[in-house]
Amino acid sequence: MEFTRKLREATARNNSLLCIGLDPDPERLPAGLTIAQFNREVIEATNDLVCAYKPNLAFYEAAGLEGVKSLEHTLSLIPPNIPVIGDAKRGDIGNTARMYARSLFDVFGFDAVTLSPYLGLDSIEPFMVYSTKGLFLLCRTSNPGARDFQDLEVEGHPLYEHVALKALEWNAHGNLGLVVGATHVRELARIRHLCPDMPLLIPGVGTQGGDLPEVVKSGTDRAGGNAIINSSRAILFASAGPDFAEAARRVAMITRDSINRYREAPHRSE
Amino acid sequence: MEFTRKLREATARNNSLLCIGLDPDPERLPAGLTIAQFNREVIEATNDLVCAYKPNLAFYEAAGLEGVKSLEHTLSLIPPNIPVIGDAKRGDIGNTARMYARSLFDVFGFDAVTLSPYLGLDSIEPFMVYSTKGLFLLCRTSNPGARDFQDLEVEGHPLYEHVALKALEWNAHGNLGLVVGATHVRELARIRHLCPDMPLLIPGVGTQGGDLPEVVKSGTDRAGGNAIINSSRAILFASAGPDFAEAARRVAMITRDSINRYREAPHRSE
Repeated sequence: MEFTRKLREATARNNSLLCIGLDPDPERLPAGLTIAQFNREVIEATNDLVCAYKPNLAFYEAAGLEGVKSLEHTLSLIPPNIPVIGDAKRGDIGNTARMYARSLFDVFGFDAVTLSPYLGLDSIEPFMVYSTKGLFLLCRTSNPGARDFQDLEVEGHPLYEHVALKALEWNAHGNLGLVVGATHVRELARIRHLCPDMPLLIPGVGTQGGDLPEVVKSGTDRAGGNAIINSSRAILFASAGPDFAEAARRVAMITRDSINRYREAPHRSE
Repeated sequence: MEFTRKLREATARNNSLLCIGLDPDPERLPAGLTIAQFNREVIEATNDLVCAYKPNLAFYEAAGLEGVKSLEHTLSLIPPNIPVIGDAKRGDIGNTARMYARSLFDVFGFDAVTLSPYLGLDSIEPFMVYSTKGLFLLCRTSNPGARDFQDLEVEGHPLYEHVALKALEWNAHGNLGLVVGATHVRELARIRHLCPDMPLLIPGVGTQGGDLPEVVKSGTDRAGGNAIINSSRAILFASAGPDFAEAARRVAMITRDSINRYREAPHRSE
């Protein structure tokens, strides 16, 4: 099924804009559990609370071949009606980008992926032709280093705004979105203003400290949707003990419900 | 052994600035050969002609688990005194970048990698602490889309120059280099001017059409070195027949020797 539709249906069914980042940091996994066992419990405990899951490939690749197998296994554990975003941040020249698209869409079968914009249009095009898939271009990221290049001023506007405008221009298949960190709500609001109808993938709530009410207010569209709000560590590692899955469910539910409360707040009716 | 020293020794031993990109495009592999069999023959035919090999991970990931195994197998076939650059173009926030560094350096054991700069310093730092490894930041790439963002003017200079200057500033361990495409020699010359002592990884000669004499003149340092000039398809697929390895050797030798001729041209003594 098309990513956009799958996302819309999961969002409605679970009444949720919450995405859980499946980033199994090996230093924080409960003792004795494999990556796939850990993910299985988290997925079973939370799949009625999320609009999407987002595994970041780095956490799997760090474990070598076994890690790649764990990722494939994890993908098989996610209910097919919940979209999965492969957080890969790939970006390479045209003929190579085709290979990454094949890996992410044909081999792993992700419904959507994240991509780096630095190499420009021909690094994105081989992904765009998969018109049923979603593509989220890094725009303004949540980390301190985002300032180094993304905030540089080009013709009176920060570089990330140029990325947002290019995404609008390139969006012939209607399958582009943007990654915008939750840690800088002013930037988030500005990007939402520039791209009123584009899906935004918003990491950085939870451990990274994004201000949830402001993020929901600034990141959602006029109907209070079209935003995928991601939390990874705060949910996965809510407890370091054997009750990690219950704790993950508890924090996921609180996060989902808080997001919904702010979606419904009076300012939405203005 | 440290990347810089390994590179210097291979460059001297093989009298070569040529790097071969081991990018086994599945559509172009000779019939009946696996990726590793193909790479084995290319490596056996060319390892006295190169200063480095550079596998691009996309071509392996596109073949799934088997592809990742092929990459590990390929790495075991490269003589240990020839440095291997993992062309990964990764770039992610700090705690995730640590995982990519672990994958590329500890799991695969690359001597050097390519990285995307878009996320800034904290996406590079987890790699920099591997002080014996080489890191090549994407600066001005060889593809048409490089224009979209890399050439945007920031304070009177294109974005890629800011990347080059940041690399100079960040280079506390002396292990940073830059990726600069061969297809735009003016930009290459400008970056060499800004970074007279930094190693440059220069893809884009061969199929992509970079002008070799100009590339060697503009990309090498005052001593005619410190440049890694990469060719992939023009060498790997020099022949589509069973003589592909001989053909690869022939083109590799011509390319290496041409580079050396231009290194020694009179303009170097100015």
